Amino acid sequence: MFNIVLHEPRMPGNVGTIGRLAFALNCTLHLIKPYGFGDITEKEVRRAGLDYWFELDVREYENIEDFWEKNPFNNRHFLATTKTKQIYFESKFEVGDYFYFGREDAGLPQAILDKSLETCITIPMTNNARSLNLANSVSIVCYEALRQNFKDFK
Amino acid sequence: MFNIVLHEPRMPGNVGTIGRLAFALNCTLHLIKPYGFGDITEKEVRRAGLDYWFELDVREYENIEDFWEKNPFNNRHFLATTKTKQIYFESKFEVGDYFYFGREDAGLPQAILDKSLETCITIPMTNNARSLNLANSVSIVCYEALRQNFKDFK
Repeated sequence: MFNIVLHEPRMPGNVGTIGRLAFALNCTLHLIKPYGFGDITEKEVRRAGLDYWFELDVREYENIEDFWEKNPFNNRHFLATTKTKQIYFESKFEVGDYFYFGREDAGLPQAILDKSLETCITIPMTNNARSLNLANSVSIVCYEALRQNFKDFK
Repeated sequence: MFNIVLHEPRMPGNVGTIGRLAFALNCTLHLIKPYGFGDITEKEVRRAGLDYWFELDVREYENIEDFWEKNPFNNRHFLATTKTKQIYFESKFEVGDYFYFGREDAGLPQAILDKSLETCITIPMTNNARSLNLANSVSIVCYEALRQNFKDFK
């Protein structure tokens, strides 16, 4: 349905959990190095991804330039960040859209956000909460995109 | 905004992550024993919940009867399960609604689902995926409820 892009993820458990979600949504999972762990065959990734991990369409890239070479940047690439006021569910999503999520401890770097300020999206929070868990954030955005495109979901 | 009800959760990390979400959404978190871990002061709960855990409105119950005594069951109690065809985003949610989620390994028991088959809800999945991570499921349902009631979110 969609493309989930994790930029330099730190926690192997998050990557596994997001893999499980990507499988259930028929999404491609794009992982951009360096990671905060060894590699995606690690036990903790597989444990969180359950047996789904082995059937998932997962692609790895050495860095963001390598990723953009194979997935040219355009205005269907949405950038999740706490640094915008554009709420994710006010965007209109389409099948094939790309959703980027940054490091658990830092988010997407400004240099990536600057590529497309108009497709930055954020998840609203109250109580001065600073952020949500990475896998939860991916779930929220991808399922809103699914809701909008449910007629194409098989 | 809403009430998140976890019935007999197994994994302390999930409870912590859901606490972080509940805080960001201004929800009350209801935890029904027995847990699959010692108690909610455990390190793993607090680590996943970050410092939000200490400010969260979290309430504990000895069992489901104790919960229902303090939160009488009615048709604003929604039951998340893979055993229904009623898709969560086709329901109309209101501020104050209760969302129940069962054990990671078993889901909600049939005896609870039987209380209100008309308010059972499910998250659509493809590829014969059996389930999502518990915290991801809670995120998906609660943020759809937020989307529907965003005018009341402060």
